[in-house]
Amino acid sequence: MKKSLGPKIVVGATVVWVVGTYDREGRPNLMTAAWGGVCCGDPPCLGVSLRKATYSHGSIVEQKAFTINIPSAAYAKEADYVGIASGRDADKWQTTGLTPVHGDLVNAPYVAEFPIVLECRLLHTMELGLHTHFIGEIMDAKVDDLVLGDGDFLSIEKVEPFFFVPGGRDYHAIGRSIEKPFSAGISFRTNQKRRE
Amino acid sequence: MKKSLGPKIVVGATVVWVVGTYDREGRPNLMTAAWGGVCCGDPPCLGVSLRKATYSHGSIVEQKAFTINIPSAAYAKEADYVGIASGRDADKWQTTGLTPVHGDLVNAPYVAEFPIVLECRLLHTMELGLHTHFIGEIMDAKVDDLVLGDGDFLSIEKVEPFFFVPGGRDYHAIGRSIEKPFSAGISFRTNQKRRE
Repeated sequence: MKKSLGPKIVVGATVVWVVGTYDREGRPNLMTAAWGGVCCGDPPCLGVSLRKATYSHGSIVEQKAFTINIPSAAYAKEADYVGIASGRDADKWQTTGLTPVHGDLVNAPYVAEFPIVLECRLLHTMELGLHTHFIGEIMDAKVDDLVLGDGDFLSIEKVEPFFFVPGGRDYHAIGRSIEKPFSAGISFRTNQKRRE
Repeated sequence: MKKSLGPKIVVGATVVWVVGTYDREGRPNLMTAAWGGVCCGDPPCLGVSLRKATYSHGSIVEQKAFTINIPSAAYAKEADYVGIASGRDADKWQTTGLTPVHGDLVNAPYVAEFPIVLECRLLHTMELGLHTHFIGEIMDAKVDDLVLGDGDFLSIEKVEPFFFVPGGRDYHAIGRSIEKPFSAGISFRTNQKRRE
């Protein structure tokens, strides 16, 4: 039996991304976003949505650039903190001990300590309501040597990203491997039914 | 040391969502999407990106409606299959044994067997390149009784969503609880450094 909960954001689990920006004075800032995802394969683009009230929002509009930083579960406390403090009055880097590194290709800082960072240039800005949806083109992905295996395959167990659960009570780390993409479903093919 | 991988989609892990649509003849279809995320809190909106070549793409454009269905890890094979077969020639419902239910509020079918389903009306369509970014307003979220705890809190362990890893080799289930959102970071507050 399904229960109708109304027009609510109940989507299972979302990403936890940390957005890096420079403000008008060139000071680096960070904030956490759970409203985000990939939105195009070529050019490689992602979308991230921020409330207008956030300090980072104005910085993205001004700089037309941001980074997305993927924290490991080991940095869950830091990622949570940068989502509850404001860059208007707190220096979140100094508070957490995280280290800003200037992007190579865009005017935005990335987090040295996180295993994956993406430099993005702002492509589109959409006002949707409470949140502004920023679409950024991924100009470069930088990954820690430590989380890359042979052939630059990502070891997601070593990255250990974690997730936010809207309507839930906890952050959750990534779990066990279950199936192979583009392969697990092939067994159904032998039984495939054609359209009538 | 970070290694630059260039403009690639290396984002840790993404959602695995199954998109439900009706085609022009009213036949239900399903496809898997890993390019998706929440993009506004109010009105509650999500974005999902599909290649123009997919059969579902045309159905969303025509019907201006779709569902997002969150599969459990137990349905990883089915979710993988509906991402590799095309609704042009395969009846994916009959092949997998999944059951289409007509949406209450929008003209799109949802998957009876999946623990969370969202009925969405199409709000915006953005051409980004290889993928079209569809933004849908969540009109209703329906959740299985079995995955709801007291006070309609979602038990994400019971939902057991799973994730796709671009650049990786496996789907991964959600893992252990690690920290409390909007709480884990509070400890940094006592040490908070003010902006210079």
